[in-house]
Formats: sequence, structure tokens, C-alpha cells
Amino acid sequence: MNGSGTGRLEAFSDGVFSIAATLLVLEFSVTSGKDLGSQLTGLWPAYLAYATSFLTIGIIWMNHHYCVETLGRADRTLLFVNLILLLIVGFLPFPTRLVAEYLQKPGEDAAVYAYDATFVLMAIVYNVWWRYASMGRRLIGEGVPDSTVRAITRAFDPGVPLYVVTLLVAFWSPLASVFLTFAVAAFYLPSAALFSRE
Amino acid sequence: MNGSGTGRLEAFSDGVFSIAATLLVLEFSVTSGKDLGSQLTGLWPAYLAYATSFLTIGIIWMNHHYCVETLGRADRTLLFVNLILLLIVGFLPFPTRLVAEYLQKPGEDAAVYAYDATFVLMAIVYNVWWRYASMGRRLIGEGVPDSTVRAITRAFDPGVPLYVVTLLVAFWSPLASVFLTFAVAAFYLPSAALFSRE
Amino acid sequence: MNGSGTGRLEAFSDGVFSIAATLLVLEFSVTSGKDLGSQLTGLWPAYLAYATSFLTIGIIWMNHHYCVETLGRADRTLLFVNLILLLIVGFLPFPTRLVAEYLQKPGEDAAVYAYDATFVLMAIVYNVWWRYASMGRRLIGEGVPDSTVRAITRAFDPGVPLYVVTLLVAFWSPLASVFLTFAVAAFYLPSAALFSRE
Amino acid sequence: MNGSGTGRLEAFSDGVFSIAATLLVLEFSVTSGKDLGSQLTGLWPAYLAYATSFLTIGIIWMNHHYCVETLGRADRTLLFVNLILLLIVGFLPFPTRLVAEYLQKPGEDAAVYAYDATFVLMAIVYNVWWRYASMGRRLIGEGVPDSTVRAITRAFDPGVPLYVVTLLVAFWSPLASVFLTFAVAAFYLPSAALFSRE
Repeated sequence: MNGSGTGRLEAFSDGVFSIAATLLVLEFSVTSGKDLGSQLTGLWPAYLAYATSFLTIGIIWMNHHYCVETLGRADRTLLFVNLILLLIVGFLPFPTRLVAEYLQKPGEDAAVYAYDATFVLMAIVYNVWWRYASMGRRLIGEGVPDSTVRAITRAFDPGVPLYVVTLLVAFWSPLASVFLTFAVAAFYLPSAALFSRE
Repeated sequence: MNGSGTGRLEAFSDGVFSIAATLLVLEFSVTSGKDLGSQLTGLWPAYLAYATSFLTIGIIWMNHHYCVETLGRADRTLLFVNLILLLIVGFLPFPTRLVAEYLQKPGEDAAVYAYDATFVLMAIVYNVWWRYASMGRRLIGEGVPDSTVRAITRAFDPGVPLYVVTLLVAFWSPLASVFLTFAVAAFYLPSAALFSRE
Repeated sequence: MNGSGTGRLEAFSDGVFSIAATLLVLEFSVTSGKDLGSQLTGLWPAYLAYATSFLTIGIIWMNHHYCVETLGRADRTLLFVNLILLLIVGFLPFPTRLVAEYLQKPGEDAAVYAYDATFVLMAIVYNVWWRYASMGRRLIGEGVPDSTVRAITRAFDPGVPLYVVTLLVAFWSPLASVFLTFAVAAFYLPSAALFSRE
Repeated sequence: MNGSGTGRLEAFSDGVFSIAATLLVLEFSVTSGKDLGSQLTGLWPAYLAYATSFLTIGIIWMNHHYCVETLGRADRTLLFVNLILLLIVGFLPFPTRLVAEYLQKPGEDAAVYAYDATFVLMAIVYNVWWRYASMGRRLIGEGVPDSTVRAITRAFDPGVPLYVVTLLVAFWSPLASVFLTFAVAAFYLPSAALFSRE
């Protein structure tokens, strides 16, 4: 396989990332017959879930591009793991809608478990993706310094533990867990994913 | 970070802009059991909202491309502000659907406030985006003349005030406010965004 | 404006064309509680409408690419007309759903009028688009021979009249009109759009 | 027609593949008023159908890219067959939703027949696509060795028979048929599509 394998990988991934992010808007709904103004303010769990999922997808997308740029080539295992990653990203609009509809209502615990579990799974598969590519510089391009590879690996390290913590917090308070997931997307991910680029 | 940062920025943005514009069509709906012909003519608020939002997204998209072309590089702050901008663009189909469903019916004021507020927010974030990139030529490419940067900045100037006015008009007449937003998309934006290119 | 204007035009258009085509699938729906097998065979108007709209969008998309390749540059008028064209393409899933739901039922005439009128409008705007670009070789690239431009113009000529005829046929028989639109997509458009390339 | 015909083919196809895959998530739905936790575990047919369709689309997408890379040019027949292929890929979210909703319920046989028949059709059209392009090296690029072409053709050979078998299995057990389709996507397709690249 030639180097164009990473171009294919990117076109493939770009589509799913952007569409999954934009489909999130379909979670919003209102019911006719009730006062619209109070419905719109009562939708805050939906706004929170939307912002959390959109930011997370957006930052993973940018981070994914950055990682792919360090690759010299892609092999079939990486393409397959990448497909599993996209399968999970493409699934995210569903648990996001669950949080939007059930937070602060009966069933919120199941909704938030599903939401958090999806993030845990996504973090695990994304880690496998990077570790497979970077281990022993298997697929890393020749011109990429070891220090860059190590910096990315360090940025990946806290991902899975952080999302496991948000899942554990959900057993105590589903609402706190969603806020924590939002905080990860707004504060941790940008610094981890974007600082590492410089 | 190298110059390819702007390529990433564009791929990222293109997806969300085009999908958000195309998802607008999902706002249209008819009810079985009533005369279809009269339903279709009664949908004029939906046509108006569709055209307004589609044109606005389309013109901002073209303008965004033009601005990105003046950039020599992107940094992590710009990427993050860009993500917030896309988060708002991706949200637009929801208030558009509200206007389509509620205009000329009880609840139209709340629907149009939400619609107009989304545009105000979008205009503010887009201004921050450009001012961050252009202030002191922070991210502007070397070959781009100062006059081009100033022309773009001038084109940005009336954006926020205009959308604040449409929001204020909504307190007097929601219908007039939507027509004004349409007029901005059909007459002001093209000249501001597209004239500045020559 | 430099030549990259056509690259922007294409990225912009590609997104809307492909998403509009793929959103067509959302027209299909079944009702729980009735026999699924007979529902699926009863959906033939939906299959017909899906195939007709998908083929039409697909062929216009390919034809659009071919036309853009003849352009040396894009100006702001062309970008704006292009945006209007995309606004109509992005709207097509709605009348397609109407045909899918109402064909062979009360209201089929209004549904097919809306469907056909959308195609007439699309054909008109697409004609304006090409004639604006090609008249006096306004935006045509230097290396493109006059014979190519004339061949494309000839291929455009029957578009509007054909769709006006399908609209007129709908006053006599909505079903025949949809079959005619399908025939245009399956037989006329491929030859007009694709033959002209050689 | 010049070589850029394959670039157009790819842009065209990429959009539909990625959007069809991502629209699959819209099949998931829950009903308010019932216990959410038990609903989510009861959704396993939906998870199975989602994973099966997503993996299949993803792998065909990658395989499609690989095949297109062997082409030196595209002609109008190939573009038209490609459009029919995309029409079927774009349709897949509908039978996927049927399987998600009806598996293990009355109507599951019709749902799985529709699902399997869609895959059979897709495999047939994709075979026609490749055989048209490769027969006598009609559209194959000059630098591509015969052995590569033969390897791809061999990888295509079992596709149609395999999907016919899954359709036949559905007459005996719809559930077994869906699991078989999943197994094809998870085990057969990756090896056939991806091994052949090296």
C-alpha cells in the first residue's frame, strides 16, 4: 500500500466526523400546544448535551487530523480500527439525544450511563488506534521526530481514565457526570489535543 | 504548527456548513388528512425561514473561505473559536424549524427571539474569529496587503449591529423581523461578503 | 478574485448535492401494526420518487462538475446564482417525500405539481447559471474551445421545456408525470450530460 | 474525457458513502413512558443492524477507493453504473431501520428479506461496475499490473453468492441471516477488500 492510504483515511473520517456533529441538532424537539418560551428554557439539558457532544467530536476530529499527519502510511489493521472508531462516533447522536430527553427526568441514570459508556468506548478504541500506529513507530512517517510521537502519546494517556471517572460519577449524580463531560470537552481536550501541536 | 492548519480548518468547516444548510429541509412537514394544496401554500413561513437560513449559511460559508485564504497559518485559539462558530451554525436548523412552525401562530415571539438570538451569537463569534486572526496581522499571510485586511474588517463591522436590530424589531413584530433577516441575507450579505473580494 | 474561486464553488456544491441525495432516504416510512410485507410492496411510489430524485441530483452533480471545469474563474454573481441553485437542490427532498406519500392517494395532484414545479425552477436557475457564465465567454477558461461551450449550451436547451411538459402532463395524470420525470432522469439526462463530455 | 473523471467519481462517491453510514444512527429510537434501561438493552437488534450496515458501507467505501485508484480514466457508462451503486448505498438506511424495528417481532421475515435483497442488489451492481471497468483493461491505468487487476477480480467473486446465501438463510431464520451478514462484514469483507491491497 502506498502513502495515499492516509489520504483515503482522512476523506473517510472527515465525512463521518462532520456529519455526526451536525446530526446532533436533530435531538432538539418541542411539543405543540405548550408555551414555547418556557419549553425553550426548559431545554437546557439538550443544549448542554449538544455542546458537549459537538465540542468533543470537533476536538477529536482536529486531533485525528494531527495524528494522521504524523503517519507515513496506513495499513489494513489501522483502517479497520479507524472504521470501528467512526462507527462509535457515528453512534454518538443517539445517546446524546437520550441525555437531552431524559436528564432531570425518570430514566436519566440509564441515559447518562449510555452516554458515558459511549465516550469510554470511543476513548479506548481511539487509544488502540494511536498505539497501534505509533508502537515502535510502526506507521509513523520518517521525518517525524520521536519527541512528537511521545508528546501525542502523553496527550492520549489521561483520556480513558477521565471518561471512566465521568461514568463512575454518574452512579452518584447523572447531572454532575454530564457537566464533567462538558468540562472535559471545554477545558481538558483543547489543551491536550491542541497544545501538543506546537 | 505548519501552514496545513488552514487546510484542516477548511475541511472541518466545509462539512458542517454544507450539512447544516441541507438539514434545513427537514423542517418541512405536512399532516395527512388535510387538503395538501392549501397546506402547501400555508407553509410560506417555512419557505421564508428555509430561504433565509440557507442563504445566510451559504454566504457565510463563502465569506469564511475568503477569510481563510488570507491566513498564513492557524493556531489553537483560532481552531477553538472556529469550533464554537460551527457549533452555532450546526444549531441553526433548530430555530429555523421553530420559525417555520410557529410564525403567525401563538408562540411566534419566542420562536423568532430564539432565531434572531442565534444570528446575533453567530455574528459575535464570527467577529471574534476574524478579529483574533487579523488583529496586528497575527495570523495573516505575508503576501496579503493591509488594504485587503482592512476591507474585510470593514465588511464585518455592520454584522452584529444589524442582527441586534432584527432582534429588537422582533419585540415589535416577529414577522417583520424574519423578513428583515431575509433581506439581510439576500441584499446586505452578498454585497458585503462578495464585493469585498474584488 | 483568483482562479481558486472555482475550487470554492465545487466544495460548496459537492456537499449540498451529496447530502440532498442521501437525505432522500428519510422519505421512506412504515407504520407499525400493519403487515410489513404488503406495506413494502405498496411503497412503490416512494421507490419511484427516490430513484427519480436521486438520479436527477446525481446527473446534475456530474454535469455541474463538467461545466465548472470549463470555467477559468468565478465571480460574485455566479456564486450567488449557484447558491440559489443549491437552495433548490437542497429543497428537493421535501417534494420528493410528498410524491412518495401522496401518489395514488387524495392530494396527489398538489404533491406532483410541487414536485414538477421544483424541477422547472431548478432547470431555469441552472440555465441562468450556465448562460451567465458562458455568454460571450464571460467566465470560460482560455484553453476551452468554443465548440465545447456550444455543445454544453445545446445540451442545456431542452431542459426547461422538458420539465414544463412534465408539469403540464401532471394536470392530466400525476402518475404519468412522475414516470416521465423518471424517464428524463434515466434516459435523457445521462445522454445530454454525459455524451457531451467526449 | 480526461483523467480528472476519476477525481469527480471519488468526490461524488465519498459524500454518499459517508452520509449513508452516518444517517444509520437515525434508526435508533425509544418510547417515553417505558423504563429506559430495559429499552436500551432490548435494542440489541438495532445495534446489530447498525454495526452490520456501518461496517459494510465502510469497507465497500475503502474498497471502492482502492479500485478507483487502479483506473486511468472514467467513462460515462462507469459514471452511470456508479450512480446506481450509490443509489442503493443511499437506500440502505431504510432496510437497516426495518431490521432494527422488526427483528424478533411479527414482520421480521419481510424486514430481513428487504435487507438481504438490498445487499444482493448492491453486490450485483458493484460487480457490474468493476467488471465493466476491468474487462479487457477497458479503463485500467497503464501502470497497473495485470496481477493487481486479477487479484481484485478474485476478491469480488464470492460477493454475490455470499449475499444470496444470506438471503436464502433468511427463509429459514431471519435472525441467523442478519448474524451471517454481520459476520460477512466483520470477517470476510475486511480480508477480501483489504488483504488484496498488499
